[in-house]
Amino acid sequence: MAEPISLVDALSTTRAIRRYTDAPIPDADLNQIMWLATRAPSGSNRQGFRFVVLRDGPNAARARELISEGAKRAWGNKRVKDQYDSGSGKRVDSPKARMARTMDHFVEHMHEAPVIVLACVKIHRPQMLGVGGSVWPAVQNLLLAARALGYGGVITGFHGPREPELRELLHLPPPESVAIAATIPLGRPQGNHGPVRRRPMAELVYEDTWESPAPWASDPPGTRFTQAGPPRG
Amino acid sequence: MAEPISLVDALSTTRAIRRYTDAPIPDADLNQIMWLATRAPSGSNRQGFRFVVLRDGPNAARARELISEGAKRAWGNKRVKDQYDSGSGKRVDSPKARMARTMDHFVEHMHEAPVIVLACVKIHRPQMLGVGGSVWPAVQNLLLAARALGYGGVITGFHGPREPELRELLHLPPPESVAIAATIPLGRPQGNHGPVRRRPMAELVYEDTWESPAPWASDPPGTRFTQAGPPRG
Repeated sequence: MAEPISLVDALSTTRAIRRYTDAPIPDADLNQIMWLATRAPSGSNRQGFRFVVLRDGPNAARARELISEGAKRAWGNKRVKDQYDSGSGKRVDSPKARMARTMDHFVEHMHEAPVIVLACVKIHRPQMLGVGGSVWPAVQNLLLAARALGYGGVITGFHGPREPELRELLHLPPPESVAIAATIPLGRPQGNHGPVRRRPMAELVYEDTWESPAPWASDPPGTRFTQAGPPRG
Repeated sequence: MAEPISLVDALSTTRAIRRYTDAPIPDADLNQIMWLATRAPSGSNRQGFRFVVLRDGPNAARARELISEGAKRAWGNKRVKDQYDSGSGKRVDSPKARMARTMDHFVEHMHEAPVIVLACVKIHRPQMLGVGGSVWPAVQNLLLAARALGYGGVITGFHGPREPELRELLHLPPPESVAIAATIPLGRPQGNHGPVRRRPMAELVYEDTWESPAPWASDPPGTRFTQAGPPRG
């Protein structure tokens, strides 16, 4: 690591990282990543977030298999549903085809990531969007903290297809009391972080009324845009 | 602003800020805060987050009134439900009584904050915890970006009690297509950011099995803990 990354740079250049080197994440780094994740805000500061970290413990091998199966099934379904193999997806050099190849590689290998984190949350009220406010900020902190120490990861929902088996294996409380929000592989990136692509600000930030673009809002010169992006889970 | 804050420092010391000076947030700063918020990840990079910013536009005065009413009602209900006026809350110097005074002041004045942001999200699937993954990371980016520029804010649910009126006033799409995740006042802090308090790591981070503390996880020396924290909405 060269000098510490500034907050502003980190917020604008923390990418989804889907390829990792074989480098492990040392205990001290993992500790700092998880500690910073848990500094996030949560509803009434109840800290309902709970992280189950998979490395090489007794359950990890089987959990990694289940997540791998979930990944392949989730991506297989998405590939069909989002028509990755039709339209521009048929052209081998199209963004769609490239993303499909990235995802093929990702679901084949993500279970081998040095660390996989299940981000869970205690369900303290029936409104699940609100419950999410007690875990997703911590997930974002986790990804930014990983970035700060030279790692990267990506939010996935790959626990989904094999969630009952994972819950049983890892002794999670029942779904009505604890939810799994995300499955996040972490490792040293192959490739680099860098500017992310988003829609133009006028589509995302309104002033005073819905869909009324804020007059003071503009993307900095050189910003690159996207209308549709990579699947993440 | 002195030198830029490092990412690591920001993640561990960005507090809920509930008192603001009268200093406005200049357009350029607000633009950068919102731009950085929108760099956050979201489900399939769909960017379902949408931010409605209230300053002094034609709807802002009425929206601020509604939010103020919502704040007072939400805090009034919470005060009773969480028994702020009994037990240790009866002692004027207890943390509970101090938090009650902070909240009294907050709900009396938060509608006067220089900027209030409604963080909304397009509902792209029925599972609302997953939908939250497309807005809460951006909310956390927003709070961190505010911090980077010398501001602060706090996540609230103060739109809740007056949500139908707010939706009509601001022309929001119906609740089945767009949800309001949070109402966030922003301003220049009275007081300071600084280390946040959380539960000990052993309660929050597990390895390999639910409630199995990770052997490599420990709080840095000097960390201060909490078992229950301030209400935030």
